[in-house]
Amino acid sequence: MSSQFVLTLSCDDRVGIVARVSSLLAGLDCNITDAQQFDDASNNRFFMRIVLEPAGHTLDEVRTAFAPIAGEYGMAWKMRDRDAPARVLIMVSKFDHCLVDLLYRKRIGELNMEVVAIVSNHPRAADHVPMDPAIPYHHLPVTRDTKPAQEAQLRQLIEETGAELVVLARYMQVLSDEMAAWLSGRCINIHHSFLPGFKGAKPYHQAYDRGVKMIGATSHYVTGDLDEGPIIAQDVMAITHRERAEDLVAKGRDVERRVLARAVKAHIEDRVWMNGSRTVVFDG
Amino acid sequence: MSSQFVLTLSCDDRVGIVARVSSLLAGLDCNITDAQQFDDASNNRFFMRIVLEPAGHTLDEVRTAFAPIAGEYGMAWKMRDRDAPARVLIMVSKFDHCLVDLLYRKRIGELNMEVVAIVSNHPRAADHVPMDPAIPYHHLPVTRDTKPAQEAQLRQLIEETGAELVVLARYMQVLSDEMAAWLSGRCINIHHSFLPGFKGAKPYHQAYDRGVKMIGATSHYVTGDLDEGPIIAQDVMAITHRERAEDLVAKGRDVERRVLARAVKAHIEDRVWMNGSRTVVFDG
Amino acid sequence: MSSQFVLTLSCDDRVGIVARVSSLLAGLDCNITDAQQFDDASNNRFFMRIVLEPAGHTLDEVRTAFAPIAGEYGMAWKMRDRDAPARVLIMVSKFDHCLVDLLYRKRIGELNMEVVAIVSNHPRAADHVPMDPAIPYHHLPVTRDTKPAQEAQLRQLIEETGAELVVLARYMQVLSDEMAAWLSGRCINIHHSFLPGFKGAKPYHQAYDRGVKMIGATSHYVTGDLDEGPIIAQDVMAITHRERAEDLVAKGRDVERRVLARAVKAHIEDRVWMNGSRTVVFDG
Amino acid sequence: MSSQFVLTLSCDDRVGIVARVSSLLAGLDCNITDAQQFDDASNNRFFMRIVLEPAGHTLDEVRTAFAPIAGEYGMAWKMRDRDAPARVLIMVSKFDHCLVDLLYRKRIGELNMEVVAIVSNHPRAADHVPMDPAIPYHHLPVTRDTKPAQEAQLRQLIEETGAELVVLARYMQVLSDEMAAWLSGRCINIHHSFLPGFKGAKPYHQAYDRGVKMIGATSHYVTGDLDEGPIIAQDVMAITHRERAEDLVAKGRDVERRVLARAVKAHIEDRVWMNGSRTVVFDG
Repeated sequence: MSSQFVLTLSCDDRVGIVARVSSLLAGLDCNITDAQQFDDASNNRFFMRIVLEPAGHTLDEVRTAFAPIAGEYGMAWKMRDRDAPARVLIMVSKFDHCLVDLLYRKRIGELNMEVVAIVSNHPRAADHVPMDPAIPYHHLPVTRDTKPAQEAQLRQLIEETGAELVVLARYMQVLSDEMAAWLSGRCINIHHSFLPGFKGAKPYHQAYDRGVKMIGATSHYVTGDLDEGPIIAQDVMAITHRERAEDLVAKGRDVERRVLARAVKAHIEDRVWMNGSRTVVFDG
Repeated sequence: MSSQFVLTLSCDDRVGIVARVSSLLAGLDCNITDAQQFDDASNNRFFMRIVLEPAGHTLDEVRTAFAPIAGEYGMAWKMRDRDAPARVLIMVSKFDHCLVDLLYRKRIGELNMEVVAIVSNHPRAADHVPMDPAIPYHHLPVTRDTKPAQEAQLRQLIEETGAELVVLARYMQVLSDEMAAWLSGRCINIHHSFLPGFKGAKPYHQAYDRGVKMIGATSHYVTGDLDEGPIIAQDVMAITHRERAEDLVAKGRDVERRVLARAVKAHIEDRVWMNGSRTVVFDG
Repeated sequence: MSSQFVLTLSCDDRVGIVARVSSLLAGLDCNITDAQQFDDASNNRFFMRIVLEPAGHTLDEVRTAFAPIAGEYGMAWKMRDRDAPARVLIMVSKFDHCLVDLLYRKRIGELNMEVVAIVSNHPRAADHVPMDPAIPYHHLPVTRDTKPAQEAQLRQLIEETGAELVVLARYMQVLSDEMAAWLSGRCINIHHSFLPGFKGAKPYHQAYDRGVKMIGATSHYVTGDLDEGPIIAQDVMAITHRERAEDLVAKGRDVERRVLARAVKAHIEDRVWMNGSRTVVFDG
Repeated sequence: MSSQFVLTLSCDDRVGIVARVSSLLAGLDCNITDAQQFDDASNNRFFMRIVLEPAGHTLDEVRTAFAPIAGEYGMAWKMRDRDAPARVLIMVSKFDHCLVDLLYRKRIGELNMEVVAIVSNHPRAADHVPMDPAIPYHHLPVTRDTKPAQEAQLRQLIEETGAELVVLARYMQVLSDEMAAWLSGRCINIHHSFLPGFKGAKPYHQAYDRGVKMIGATSHYVTGDLDEGPIIAQDVMAITHRERAEDLVAKGRDVERRVLARAVKAHIEDRVWMNGSRTVVFDG
């Protein structure tokens, strides 16, 4: 099968955007095989994702043809080859269930990504059987005092590897505000609670103490405001009075890895936008 | 707020459809506030739903302007005023939980419909407290012998009331093939099982006997092929070994009414198409 | 079918409780048809619910036989005829979807209760079609100044009707601390959010602003601490970026009525205990 | 923490069983920390699971004390140390998502089992990174002609390893009737559909063709009657018209591994009984 291009754009809403974009593509003889759009009436923002068949044109050719329209409408936009894997850097601490799950989904082709590095504040554990030895593992320990230096290392690594997305897969360290800002829109965290409930430390223990009947997990873009970033995906599962905090921790792993994988998949397939404190997420 | 029009269309996929349609609307100065589309690669069918602001044009004007494009592409299409309530006829037998629920959702504005008639093979029960006396109630009893005559009455009623949609809200009689064919694409049934499991009679008892751990309900378009019509919505709920067939019947009512309401809402908001043995259902 | 008795008890855990209770019942030739128990290791509390066939004994006889054991173990306990409907008083403001749903479930036998009164701070609406005229409707308006007097009326009504349970079915007034304390363990509220997220006013609007991907509802026992009472049931539903705050309000009604009905059913079937800030809820 | 014993039993229901069992344990000074029971009124069978603190007694001592009661009531029963890992043999073909998931859950302590062997009709794949090399991997290829011989090998392996449970983790070969009968009650399969819908081959493709709106997975005990064994766990997930059969295959993996893990966990924690064509599954 020949490749497809994905065009994503956002701009202020005006009459005629769809007509302009689709007419340009029709003029290039590019068939649109999928299109999703959303007009946010609350802030007049328009979001669109188009999958197109290039009809023999190169990516650069279509980009060049599109650029004038983007300029005219003041669009934030991107066009990429759908088959090109996203470059992803994964950060992890001791709990590796999300990491293992992401690597597995990559291996079987569910997540179209190249894992350019794994970074952890802990050394590689002896029992990390499932970790592909071909993926570079960087042990970057961190303390309160060394955080600036550690984050400088991390930043260098992100730049050197060309990572487009950083995934905090139960990385239990808080990024500095500077680092969070620098990674804005390209860093996804999994929080082990159904936000905004149970922010902060030990959310499952908080959930047990409060006596909720469902626990959940939340994946969100990282911002300087801890646990407040725009939410990409959430899910929950029912619990009963029989389950103690430790049981919730165990049970929650299933939700965490599922929710994180869903968010990562949406991001690397160019289906998510930040939209103020919210996100727009198109169907996969 | 001024009204909006909803344009729905389907046709064989070709390069340039979106450009043609959106350019026409832009030429009329009509802003597109929502658009959803789907290209079914398996049969090369294209489906689109557009919500537009008429910019002072009447419904007839926009229809007239659109008709040539529809002709050119061989579209099946419809355009209607979003605020105009759909005319709906509801059929019911003894169990009235779906009927009561639909009427309630209509009353609070969740379902934008006018219930033009209620038809039942049973007389109006004394305890039918929740039934709005302003809605005509037609008692059309039916036996094997009288079915042709009863269906003739029903058909006359549908024509006289101008019903656009017939909802079988736990109407426990099987329509004749002729009637089903005549109502194709405008008659929705709720089946009290998670189809294709447990077709036929007493599905909850079948489910109990088989020992499943979840029960469900299915709303689908009625076709001549019983329990085989294209599915619009489904949902399930967990059950345990403690629950007997009677408990499943009781529990299932919640799923049935929820699933039927979802299907009816999708239909009257012009968000569903039959697509062979499947349906296309756009988000609400 | 002959009747069954339900015995519910809680006490500090000790070796031999089950043996003592079950031996007593065996001595009376009462078969145990269902038993559920829970030992809370965190506070050493023991909870048990037994359904028994009385083998010809009256309720008073079995109660009398059981009382000495209850005294010995310091049990909080109750024994009642399973067929006797619970006496329930329902409070409501303008939104009546929960009220309508509870009344419907009562009518079809799903909730074994007698609704002794409906109390509202609003007059009976003209379009309250579904409300059974046989149920006394009390209009008790309330302002900040008249709250003490209104609550005195309410209290008198609860006492006169012998209401065992008060259900706040979207009653949008906050009970005074005194009233909440007086009703402790016999007053259930439905909160239109997935607690502890979005406490306070307009939770759906808060949810929209925060950009969550699921909304929910929570039914809980009322305590003096607003929105902090022990939770009985919760549920959620997925939402998308397409839905505005008003859509969440509409969609949330389905969750609210389902969650409230589940909590009320558990309570009137003697399957719930308050256990500090949590609840114990046995399967139905 | 000292160990606990788990007693599981089933027998015909009679007055006094709970009293006899609990009195015996009280006489041994064994505290009951958890008990669940179920009386199946449809066949008069009684099922019970008790977790007890042995109060210094050995497993053999409590077993010996209990045996007379078991004999008297004709009980099928078992008593084991809760900490002893179950011996499990896992069978797999090419798709290894369930295998990988089970091994991961074992590693982090969620499944208390020892994997005594992995058996596959395919050789160990080069990219089977996640497979613990310490677990014996047996390649037992099979054709129609060699099935009797292969099953003889398998049977020998099960006996030699002392496997208590055989898990068919997407093992795509049908066991012979003899093998299925021999493994009755100790062999769990995962079927990649929501049974009884879509029996047989390629269920996701069947599901796509039928146009269902949810797909699911079913774990069940293997019996001679293919896809008809008693169901232990089921779950579903929503799909849309956008997803093709291949997408359902990918999406279904999440449900399959979750449902299989749930069933395996219930079995090795002695919380499941076969009960005719159904199962009794107590809460974990």
